[in-house]
Amino acid sequence: MVKLKIYDTTLRDGAQGEGVSFSLEDKLRIVKKLDEFGIHYIECGWPGSNPKDEIFFQEVKKIKLSHAKICAFGSTRKPDSKTSEDANVQALLSAGIEVITIFGKSWDFHVKKALETTLEENLKMIYETVSFLKSKRKEVIYDAEHFFDGYKANKDYALKTLEKAHEAGADCLCLCDTNGGTLPWEIEEIIGGVKACFPKISLGIHTHNDNDLAVANSLVAVKCGVNMVQGTINGYGERCGNANLCSIIPNLQLKLQINYLTERRLQMLTEVSRFISELANLPHRENQPYVGKSAFTHKGGIHISAVRKHESTYEHIDPLLVGNARRILVSELSGQSTILSKAGDYGLDFTKNDPQVKEILKNVKKLEQMGYQFEGAEGSFELLVKKATGKYKKFFDLESFRVLVEKRGIKDIISEAVVKVMVNGERNYTVAEGDGPVNALDNALRGILEDFYPQLKEMKLLDYKVRVLTEGVGTIAKVRVLIESGDHEDTWGTVGVSENIIEASWQALVDSFEYKLLKDFEKKLH
Amino acid sequence: MVKLKIYDTTLRDGAQGEGVSFSLEDKLRIVKKLDEFGIHYIECGWPGSNPKDEIFFQEVKKIKLSHAKICAFGSTRKPDSKTSEDANVQALLSAGIEVITIFGKSWDFHVKKALETTLEENLKMIYETVSFLKSKRKEVIYDAEHFFDGYKANKDYALKTLEKAHEAGADCLCLCDTNGGTLPWEIEEIIGGVKACFPKISLGIHTHNDNDLAVANSLVAVKCGVNMVQGTINGYGERCGNANLCSIIPNLQLKLQINYLTERRLQMLTEVSRFISELANLPHRENQPYVGKSAFTHKGGIHISAVRKHESTYEHIDPLLVGNARRILVSELSGQSTILSKAGDYGLDFTKNDPQVKEILKNVKKLEQMGYQFEGAEGSFELLVKKATGKYKKFFDLESFRVLVEKRGIKDIISEAVVKVMVNGERNYTVAEGDGPVNALDNALRGILEDFYPQLKEMKLLDYKVRVLTEGVGTIAKVRVLIESGDHEDTWGTVGVSENIIEASWQALVDSFEYKLLKDFEKKLH
Repeated sequence: MVKLKIYDTTLRDGAQGEGVSFSLEDKLRIVKKLDEFGIHYIECGWPGSNPKDEIFFQEVKKIKLSHAKICAFGSTRKPDSKTSEDANVQALLSAGIEVITIFGKSWDFHVKKALETTLEENLKMIYETVSFLKSKRKEVIYDAEHFFDGYKANKDYALKTLEKAHEAGADCLCLCDTNGGTLPWEIEEIIGGVKACFPKISLGIHTHNDNDLAVANSLVAVKCGVNMVQGTINGYGERCGNANLCSIIPNLQLKLQINYLTERRLQMLTEVSRFISELANLPHRENQPYVGKSAFTHKGGIHISAVRKHESTYEHIDPLLVGNARRILVSELSGQSTILSKAGDYGLDFTKNDPQVKEILKNVKKLEQMGYQFEGAEGSFELLVKKATGKYKKFFDLESFRVLVEKRGIKDIISEAVVKVMVNGERNYTVAEGDGPVNALDNALRGILEDFYPQLKEMKLLDYKVRVLTEGVGTIAKVRVLIESGDHEDTWGTVGVSENIIEASWQALVDSFEYKLLKDFEKKLH
Repeated sequence: MVKLKIYDTTLRDGAQGEGVSFSLEDKLRIVKKLDEFGIHYIECGWPGSNPKDEIFFQEVKKIKLSHAKICAFGSTRKPDSKTSEDANVQALLSAGIEVITIFGKSWDFHVKKALETTLEENLKMIYETVSFLKSKRKEVIYDAEHFFDGYKANKDYALKTLEKAHEAGADCLCLCDTNGGTLPWEIEEIIGGVKACFPKISLGIHTHNDNDLAVANSLVAVKCGVNMVQGTINGYGERCGNANLCSIIPNLQLKLQINYLTERRLQMLTEVSRFISELANLPHRENQPYVGKSAFTHKGGIHISAVRKHESTYEHIDPLLVGNARRILVSELSGQSTILSKAGDYGLDFTKNDPQVKEILKNVKKLEQMGYQFEGAEGSFELLVKKATGKYKKFFDLESFRVLVEKRGIKDIISEAVVKVMVNGERNYTVAEGDGPVNALDNALRGILEDFYPQLKEMKLLDYKVRVLTEGVGTIAKVRVLIESGDHEDTWGTVGVSENIIEASWQALVDSFEYKLLKDFEKKLH
């Protein structure tokens, strides 16, 4: 049996997703990461349609890959023309890449309506393009676009297009559910029909998620014996996206027991998923199966107490297998068991029915109603717990701040912050500029505090997020600011909420400074 | 054949999702909306575990529903106790709701590890709780928690738990894939096993999405003959969420041809999905199948030119069937055909290879590199096109602005904006306060412009979104601000990008004012 291959098209089909855009440097980093992860084929772009992709192919060839093959993507030649003179085919060849994926039309309707040519000419386009590339000693994967819709509309013609690609020497026939509307049992039936005609050729599957079934359709195809699965990391792609490899890979390995990735590599899954979402500059979907921040997160009281007794009560796999982690949430649905479990993490030893726990719970609920959220703001939550238990210590007191943002004509904009803070009974003033009002506040506060607490120099703000809370009320909506900070040892999140974005940012900033100071102070005590 | 019923648990299981939280008022509005949409059962909460839910049940009974039945959720009685004295069961009864869903344990491992009781006692708990509630003339749905895992671990015991619920008179046995790890062919096989034992009883399916297969698993169960599908709107729920009714409902109706909702109601799908995401205060997932903003959005050049020829070339259904709409994107992947198609929407008539189109394309690409995004900011894009074609008209000129945010001690924070603007060659000053710096700027700009252009009074800012662009650089990250505005006729989006959030907001604000003025000016001309 041929080994199952994973074919990633994040850089080509994935980049068609709304809001997805990769720079040249991003694409090179992604290729290296996918190779390290163990992907077999990495489709990188379309040299015939995109000048940026041509430059990229020159660069990618310089990378030494340990595992993956690079693929270039393109279409069959244009109707009524010579393959060797086709600009798209020439661009594919001049990219100098070993594996070429050629898509052609399987659906008679598309041949007539989109290509505006005859059914006969389309068969020639497929045959001639594939055989021309094979004559240049390329590995050729033939993508049968709209195959399932084509098969339903005109089975004989759809099969004939595959036959042409096969006769021309294609190494794999990949069946595409381009519009993403096919059902799992249709996939099963149609692949059965194809296998009856081409019992020996290697088949692939390429699905889209328009009916929310792309992952199921891919798995069903594997059960039917296809040898290649195409998809994208995080399911990026046009409309509702492509089949999500971050779900397919662990399902294949952990549920279907197809061990084509080593165990160590599967543990990279969460990292790969988040890395690519970072480069795509898209928020990582929290409830994404296997890799999301919430995928193994427990919020309901009953679930938490059961998971504390035995993990597999509410988890289908061990999160470590895919490099993810279990989390217990602080939320209005959570009861004492959550607070106890969290407080234990901070070295605080509460007993059940402790009045302090009830006090904290009441406080958390009140703040949550105001728009605070401690999911992701563990730093602020820890300060809140310590304030309630007398373990908190004040390092500075804010007297006032003033932020000025001024723009004159088309000249640069100026942001300036004045901060007055009491430290050790002494009043301190400072003024600082910054790139934007929050950065100016950050700079001003540091200007004072670093003189007293030089360890703050190690602390950096790593991330800054703004969430508008009540939609539908324009510029007076409440905002929640989440700041992530870190030093050489830890990272922590802090939160602020206000109708005023400057005030919300200030709260989160102050919490972050306090968290750092308290953490270092406690360390010295021990 | 019994008609298929849709059972919504957004308000109970959905509310366990990370970041999901509904107020009492939200929950009542959601019940009305789901009833109007045609949902058969609406599970509303757990009166035994949550005092907020008890109050809610008193309120919900006052609503006159046209269609749906309200359900209360609870567990079987506690081990070794009397059902009639069980606090949870009493709370369920005193809620006074007609339909009660009771969950019990099917998996022997759970009975021992989580319930910490005997297998025998668990069977009694199921039987006695269901029959007690039946004796009170309730409709009882029995949720067999972890049924599929339980069946795989100990088939006989799992079936015995169903038998007890059935003997006790349960009206429906709902099989739950609580941990969300089951595969579609396992669902098929296990439901087959259950049907062999209980050929006549009504079965339900309740799946979770931990392996990204919840929708497929629900559809497979319907094919196997279950009569009830449980799920949540937008797939909200613990960990990776519940089965997404927004995908299941259109799949059932449009793909499996099960017409249990009228056509008119299916057209509410997108609205219902967005309404509930609004109340849950969660961003609506753009690539969500059927209902997402991107679900019928075309970005790739080839797709756009094909869709312009014939819609169904790259769409699996007509978006209007589910109340969604087609969109054509402006992006770096898009070529002339996109700009031509967009410009047509604004009444501009370009020809192919027009140098103005090339100029606009160059401009869009440059701005996109700086972080602008015109997906969702059609207002700003239209201004850009009109500037390039001489159809733009200036209504005011900004000379300068200054924003001051000041906080003293714990007192309220003050935001004040000073704006200087030239209108008709006349210099105008104004100062205004606001709830936050952006609102102050908005108020100041209106303070001047409404005197000259009273039609601005009809314009409202509807939504304000902030996106931090380059993650990983703390408070000096670039931000992109998206503002949505509207008047009595239209809504439009505008965008601003800067390292300074005030400047980015200002750009989007000014574009919004200009868009409104230009729109009204053109209307007068025609």
